[in-house]
Amino acid sequence: MIILEKTPFQEEKLLDLLKKHTKLELQMRNDIYSTYHLYPPPELSEIKTTVVYPATEKHLQKYLRQEVHLIRETREDYENVTLPFIQSQSFSVQWVYNILEKKAEADRIVHENPDPRDGFVLVPDFKWNQNQLDDLYLIALAHRRDVKCLRDLTGEHLPLLRNIAREGTEAVTKRFGVPGSQLRIYLHYQPSYYHLHVHFTALGYDAPGSSVERAHLLADVIDNLATDSSYYQKRALTFALRADEPLFKKFQEAGRA
Amino acid sequence: MIILEKTPFQEEKLLDLLKKHTKLELQMRNDIYSTYHLYPPPELSEIKTTVVYPATEKHLQKYLRQEVHLIRETREDYENVTLPFIQSQSFSVQWVYNILEKKAEADRIVHENPDPRDGFVLVPDFKWNQNQLDDLYLIALAHRRDVKCLRDLTGEHLPLLRNIAREGTEAVTKRFGVPGSQLRIYLHYQPSYYHLHVHFTALGYDAPGSSVERAHLLADVIDNLATDSSYYQKRALTFALRADEPLFKKFQEAGRA
Repeated sequence: MIILEKTPFQEEKLLDLLKKHTKLELQMRNDIYSTYHLYPPPELSEIKTTVVYPATEKHLQKYLRQEVHLIRETREDYENVTLPFIQSQSFSVQWVYNILEKKAEADRIVHENPDPRDGFVLVPDFKWNQNQLDDLYLIALAHRRDVKCLRDLTGEHLPLLRNIAREGTEAVTKRFGVPGSQLRIYLHYQPSYYHLHVHFTALGYDAPGSSVERAHLLADVIDNLATDSSYYQKRALTFALRADEPLFKKFQEAGRA
Repeated sequence: MIILEKTPFQEEKLLDLLKKHTKLELQMRNDIYSTYHLYPPPELSEIKTTVVYPATEKHLQKYLRQEVHLIRETREDYENVTLPFIQSQSFSVQWVYNILEKKAEADRIVHENPDPRDGFVLVPDFKWNQNQLDDLYLIALAHRRDVKCLRDLTGEHLPLLRNIAREGTEAVTKRFGVPGSQLRIYLHYQPSYYHLHVHFTALGYDAPGSSVERAHLLADVIDNLATDSSYYQKRALTFALRADEPLFKKFQEAGRA
């Protein structure tokens, strides 16, 4: 499977782009407005390319466009439908363990708190090429391996979550110069892999998965757990599933979708 | 003024892109995943270029990126900064009253529950031209005029909120054929006008203002209020403000931004 993505313009290369363009084709002119096609040289139009090989059916499904439905998952739904599904799937998180054990991407680590219970590793997300801050995207991966997702979080995890919030923000500010007030810090539910992780994205970046039906602000998660340790154990949670996802079929079989 | 925009990939040129690339540079490899930079030839990486000449100050403002910052508003912030600001502004909501009183848009009403306390009017949002369901967007406006926003909501308002959730969904499904599972139903905080209203958008539509730092799912609001009538009176709420907004200046003056 090959994924191609155009990346944002790099400010320092804009002058080159306007000067070194090989061709400028006029499309339309009206009053003070005119439009052109500009054809830049290869070195100024890099395309981010991701290869997954071998790719499973699940990898492919993730990128195909599909009808999407909301699920309002109660605690009972989680226990009866979602949890058995997660356990039956054995999603591999070997790549996470590789990072935590410095077997991969060790040179990419932006920050680490090595505490086995309340520590984490902060790395740039695959989706960010680190060339510009506009689409800044990092991931904090918890060292502990017994927390799958938001549903598992209780007051016990507050020190870990607060470390991620404080140290993660400090590290991003120090390394990339982006202040905490310009970082969107959140968890996904459902996540795409079941090892606790937290997303750090540039506030100005309309990152995929930052919409209200999937993202939960870390600050809200911390406040909710501080008020009620079992908040995420008890409450109903909304998420979207594509009609062809196996979990959606499980909810249908259970008469809950 | 020159505006440069990268355009979406054209399906029929994808093969060329993968065959004719001049260079493929490996960035990272981990397990089955690897990322590359691909440098395509000029004819496959056209950039849409718009020239406005001469450009006025107003043209520039429209495109200048404004710095945006997150505010974490405590209850005290709301009382000391936000509420006095709202009260000092006298934002006009006459256009809302015109709809509620059938003095405007009466022919556009999709559903009404006329109860003065627990009723509402459902209308298509200005932003939706009703030509296609992809960007479906409706607004439910409460009949009562004493609820400004999410902060004012308590258990007292549960009947109103539940009416909006149930009747609003039924009305959209009946009129437009979109099932409840494909509707994103939420409140904004901060809202753009201070009269209680709820957004209904197509789940597949990446509607502006549907991201986690502004949107609150109605289902979550209802559950939170049912658990704790004063949930939104007490808790901290996050929202984003542009650096040039008057409310942002108020937060700065208060030493809270």
